[in-house]
Amino acid sequence: MRSALASLLLLLTAPLLAQSAAEKPLFGFTAPTAQKQRALERDFDAKLNPQNLREWMKRLTARPHHLGSDYDKANAEFIASLFRGWGYDTKIEEFEVLFPTPRTRVLELVAPSKFVAKLVEPAIAEDATSGQQSEQLPTYNAYSIDGDVTGELVYVNYGIPKDYDELARRGVDVKGKIVIARYGGSWRGIKPKVAAEHGAIGCIIYSDPRDDGYFQGDVYPKGAFRNENGAQRGSVMDMPVHPGDPLTPGVGATKDAKRLERKDAEVITKIPVLPISYSDALPLLRELGGPIAPIDWRGALPITYHVGPGPARVHLKLEFDWKMVTARDVIARLAGSEFPDQWIMRGNHYDAWVNGASDPISGLVAELEEARAIGELAKSGSRPKRTIIYAAWDGEEEGLLGSTEWAETHADELRRNGVVYLNSDSNSRGFLDAGGSHTLERLVTEVARDVVDPERNVSVLQRLRAHELLAATNAEERKTQRELELIRLDALGSGSDYTPFLQHLGVAALDVGYSGESSGGSYHSVYDSFYHYTRFGDPDFRYGVTQAKTTGRMVLRLANADVLPFEFATFASTLSRYVNELTKLADTLRADTEERNRQLTDKTMELAADPTKPFVAPNAEEPVPFLNFAPLQNAVARLQKSAKAYDAVAGNAIADSPAVGAKRQSLDQLLMHVEQLLTRREGLPRRPWFAHQIYAPGFYTGYGVKTIPGVREAIEQRDWNEASQQMAIVAGVIERYAAEVDRATGMLSRSE
Amino acid sequence: MRSALASLLLLLTAPLLAQSAAEKPLFGFTAPTAQKQRALERDFDAKLNPQNLREWMKRLTARPHHLGSDYDKANAEFIASLFRGWGYDTKIEEFEVLFPTPRTRVLELVAPSKFVAKLVEPAIAEDATSGQQSEQLPTYNAYSIDGDVTGELVYVNYGIPKDYDELARRGVDVKGKIVIARYGGSWRGIKPKVAAEHGAIGCIIYSDPRDDGYFQGDVYPKGAFRNENGAQRGSVMDMPVHPGDPLTPGVGATKDAKRLERKDAEVITKIPVLPISYSDALPLLRELGGPIAPIDWRGALPITYHVGPGPARVHLKLEFDWKMVTARDVIARLAGSEFPDQWIMRGNHYDAWVNGASDPISGLVAELEEARAIGELAKSGSRPKRTIIYAAWDGEEEGLLGSTEWAETHADELRRNGVVYLNSDSNSRGFLDAGGSHTLERLVTEVARDVVDPERNVSVLQRLRAHELLAATNAEERKTQRELELIRLDALGSGSDYTPFLQHLGVAALDVGYSGESSGGSYHSVYDSFYHYTRFGDPDFRYGVTQAKTTGRMVLRLANADVLPFEFATFASTLSRYVNELTKLADTLRADTEERNRQLTDKTMELAADPTKPFVAPNAEEPVPFLNFAPLQNAVARLQKSAKAYDAVAGNAIADSPAVGAKRQSLDQLLMHVEQLLTRREGLPRRPWFAHQIYAPGFYTGYGVKTIPGVREAIEQRDWNEASQQMAIVAGVIERYAAEVDRATGMLSRSE
Repeated sequence: MRSALASLLLLLTAPLLAQSAAEKPLFGFTAPTAQKQRALERDFDAKLNPQNLREWMKRLTARPHHLGSDYDKANAEFIASLFRGWGYDTKIEEFEVLFPTPRTRVLELVAPSKFVAKLVEPAIAEDATSGQQSEQLPTYNAYSIDGDVTGELVYVNYGIPKDYDELARRGVDVKGKIVIARYGGSWRGIKPKVAAEHGAIGCIIYSDPRDDGYFQGDVYPKGAFRNENGAQRGSVMDMPVHPGDPLTPGVGATKDAKRLERKDAEVITKIPVLPISYSDALPLLRELGGPIAPIDWRGALPITYHVGPGPARVHLKLEFDWKMVTARDVIARLAGSEFPDQWIMRGNHYDAWVNGASDPISGLVAELEEARAIGELAKSGSRPKRTIIYAAWDGEEEGLLGSTEWAETHADELRRNGVVYLNSDSNSRGFLDAGGSHTLERLVTEVARDVVDPERNVSVLQRLRAHELLAATNAEERKTQRELELIRLDALGSGSDYTPFLQHLGVAALDVGYSGESSGGSYHSVYDSFYHYTRFGDPDFRYGVTQAKTTGRMVLRLANADVLPFEFATFASTLSRYVNELTKLADTLRADTEERNRQLTDKTMELAADPTKPFVAPNAEEPVPFLNFAPLQNAVARLQKSAKAYDAVAGNAIADSPAVGAKRQSLDQLLMHVEQLLTRREGLPRRPWFAHQIYAPGFYTGYGVKTIPGVREAIEQRDWNEASQQMAIVAGVIERYAAEVDRATGMLSRSE
Repeated sequence: MRSALASLLLLLTAPLLAQSAAEKPLFGFTAPTAQKQRALERDFDAKLNPQNLREWMKRLTARPHHLGSDYDKANAEFIASLFRGWGYDTKIEEFEVLFPTPRTRVLELVAPSKFVAKLVEPAIAEDATSGQQSEQLPTYNAYSIDGDVTGELVYVNYGIPKDYDELARRGVDVKGKIVIARYGGSWRGIKPKVAAEHGAIGCIIYSDPRDDGYFQGDVYPKGAFRNENGAQRGSVMDMPVHPGDPLTPGVGATKDAKRLERKDAEVITKIPVLPISYSDALPLLRELGGPIAPIDWRGALPITYHVGPGPARVHLKLEFDWKMVTARDVIARLAGSEFPDQWIMRGNHYDAWVNGASDPISGLVAELEEARAIGELAKSGSRPKRTIIYAAWDGEEEGLLGSTEWAETHADELRRNGVVYLNSDSNSRGFLDAGGSHTLERLVTEVARDVVDPERNVSVLQRLRAHELLAATNAEERKTQRELELIRLDALGSGSDYTPFLQHLGVAALDVGYSGESSGGSYHSVYDSFYHYTRFGDPDFRYGVTQAKTTGRMVLRLANADVLPFEFATFASTLSRYVNELTKLADTLRADTEERNRQLTDKTMELAADPTKPFVAPNAEEPVPFLNFAPLQNAVARLQKSAKAYDAVAGNAIADSPAVGAKRQSLDQLLMHVEQLLTRREGLPRRPWFAHQIYAPGFYTGYGVKTIPGVREAIEQRDWNEASQQMAIVAGVIERYAAEVDRATGMLSRSE
């Protein structure tokens, strides 16, 4: 039965920006509660003070505070004390996790000339914390195995699978060799994984000044960019298999948890890995011979880039202290006045690689200021209807340890009570950057409409739209941009603490921050300091406050909405886009395979090749069959229909609907759990931890998302049987999801 | 009346490669004369000896031999003596031309630090001729005016008009400043011209290692590429206005020619210009502040590229010896046995900037070997039917002086007797690269089909097709490539000696050479030596011989054909492509203007801009009106119809047609003169010397071609009135051309 609300809908979907501030609806609120909510948000804004962010950052970054360090523990206790002071029910939850730190790091060129890598980021006079060497973690990659290897060097560009295809075309094999890859092109952990798959015995990762150094801008301390001695620390555990403690996949790393032996931990690398600066890389790369590197492999060092192998030979020796340390998550709870069992969760990690002003303290201090204001509002009588849980995570840098272990420990509660997990991490000047569950696009868009950009005095939505319009590369993209009613959320891959919530448990998630106007090269170095951040990041913390306004509004609206602000139309159309991408992927792969096989038959590549240069023709590939996309297409078509039907009875003004009244609670229960229907306990092929069937980090990209990953990666890996199986599975998942949307529609329709 | 040949045509247009060698037709020949011609070509091939090329190159490059030098004169005499020995009626024709050489060259950084540019290419031990400093021309740009200027420095990327738009967006003006541009992106002479138009007072041009140095490959002497001290000499006269002697535009620079005063010469630069190496550029660029350069402006020097202005201040002082020198063209004639007044002309310059092994001697020695073999064939009885004229030009490097003055001096004879001018210049390993009049595509394709590539033992046509197929970037381009029956000739802009023949006089022209497998950085430096060329260019001169086989075949077929091998179908379809490009250009410009104006109204750029960086919004542009392309489109449509009708009566086997018989001579007369109908004595707007209405070097690109230049450049410059006027003019030109094609068709049809 078609609801009378359908006609109302027409009135309410006029472009958001055309309405005056007073008329602006708040999705999920009735007109009267929206008025109240707006007043609350004005009070909230008024409480935010950039000076707090500055002081907390100064304090939290005063010393190195990596996982397991004294100052990390002190920070946890300080943060907990703040939350307690603001009225939150706060505790520190502890986990015991494996965290290797270096005992020996040797990298030397042994032929044709000699050079010993310095592996040191020197102190810089202006930067007071850069010289705290006794507490700094040295430059290294966590979860590299121990190793002592010597071999010829091969330059592998970004070290992703297609780079090895290019090497093979030039007759270069890395078996028994040590590879040197530059940062970029994938998440760093992919590089040693792919190198090991190809038989390499060691892996060096360096920051090329093309991507991360003087090519990008003036280097530190003159400018913000990575100088010749800066090196990027970071975890190389195989996070696309699972994040969290390597010894306790799938379960919380509590004191008495059952643990794997280290040798059985799947996510530790197979070969030793070390990150180095470009001043350490230059002497190695300069001594490479062999074919010249393809043009887009060449960086900004003043040399001719060759791929090798050799004559450069290097010796790499790494030994780690494989110790267990305590990870401490600060969990601060503000119980909801009406629906204490509906949890709005908000988190940012607090651990860093060194002093970590930008990563993660810039995001954390915004979260703290947001929490302080919300706590004060609660004290003065405006307690949220739903429970708000603030988290400050430990051990994120090593592989989302704190958040993952907490989420695994509390999995059942989270599946029962979790509504949304809202994440943030580094924050700086620029544009709103939001990713997450597509059911939340209207919420995010309305918040962006209501927050003012501190530099341009228009809404952050308007500024983002201007930015995205200029980023569009053709008229069609510009047209799409201009016609979009809602912000298009990025699909989430990995790289921050939303992963265990969204991809393991199926709790709807958002990841929100500002960025784009303060690029620089302090990432994971000793130079990510208060001094650096307050010169180049967000000097007056105006974007820290803007972030607090943005995420605070999201939290408050989620906590106080009359009906939870989820909707399905853009999710259904986004899914339809993803399925179109998949069909196109298969078509492109088919055409490319045909073309390549034809060129092999015609000897095209051989005829065009320069006979004075090595050239090995690739092998012919099995032709790509036509795959049956129909189950997936039918499921998505059904969901689009279901979403449309839901919108027809619910619409933007759902909270005002008399139909909702008594159904509010059961509708909320349905809405808060529906994302879980997108997960399967069996997870993805070869990585059961990743349960979500729509979003996952790529097996060969790392942080980079793969949407509908089971199908997409099967096609990419040319496994047609698995692609078909996965299509059936995902189709089933979407069908069950659509049925739940239909149940919601029925719930509302029957009440008419 | 439709000829009976039409049906024959169907049999003969089967794909060229599907036919066995014995069956392969020769366009313009009857079946019996084709047999004879094939035998001649076999004899010709057998006479070619790579050892000759090596010895002549060794001798001709033994000392620096620029225009006006002793060794240049000696080379002219040596070349003339060779031609005489081979039976050519040979003379040296002399012209008196303006050729400035440096007296003073000073470039220094005066603030914020001090540095004096070395301006020297040092001798390299392995390279015997690199140290001949007493005879070498120093590094400089010919036809720069004298000047003594000091000012703040601004980096202008390639120094083309759109680069100045980018600077304006960043609030940077070059008025009263000295600009530094990198080589590339346009012909060098454009850089000081555009800089002066924007008010700069001096111009430095440097070779960035990104485009021309270690980024591209190992540097000399380890590899072929430009080392840190290499600098590119070159002319900066305003060649798109006219090439040749600056004092005698349009007339031969004979002793008694009427000359302009130097101050009235339009093509001398308005500001002083100097080329420098990257080791001299680095200290200057390093001291630039101001905005960071746009990402695609950044080169491969190990610095952050800023645009300035300042704080770098430089002093540039240049004084020249503005002397008159003698240019000597060697002209060698082999009179045709049947049609002495039909001239097949073949030329390559012999002057160099220094020793010039690659540029131009690699091309010249192939021409000499070709001429030797043809001379011997003539001596042994196989005299060509038409006259062949070999030319070795002087003063090409300064601005096509030798060829232009000769063509201007002999303009009337050339208009009367010229059939084709076939040019070459540098030659090296790689792929056939041919440009020229599109009426000659079948000739070029058939020759490419019949010459074997020395590296891969397939025809150079097959190898070129493989190369072009791999260069195609998408399936549609690959489809087009595969379906092309004939090689697509590049349209000719400028940069070598075909310009006066094709673009001033309307003699059909070709420019032919091999390249693509021996890139390097010796261009216009002291390192363009015998040593460099025989290591990196074409070590065994196999491609020199392949070039001789290729151009020699073209010359012999043109000289002996029963009917001149011109045809019109691909020219007509190429013209149609050009007109489509023009309509698309106007449409794109219109859409871009609308978009830009909309963004200005919406303040999109302002909202997206980072307020901490300078940003100046561009001005709104006048909307682009819809232009009347119909006259041009109708003219091209008519020509396509005319070409089709001609093919229907003529076809591939025209020479075999009984219809031709008695008409041969009048048909040849028509065919050899029809290209002249594409010229107008009034020339192009603002540059009357350039008479050709279809091909011209771009006013703001230099060597780069602009097709249908009158219309295209008017649209690019947003001069809608001129665009309309030019469309009418070009339409008229094409109509007259089509009428001449119709006359040819009628000639053949009436004889049936």
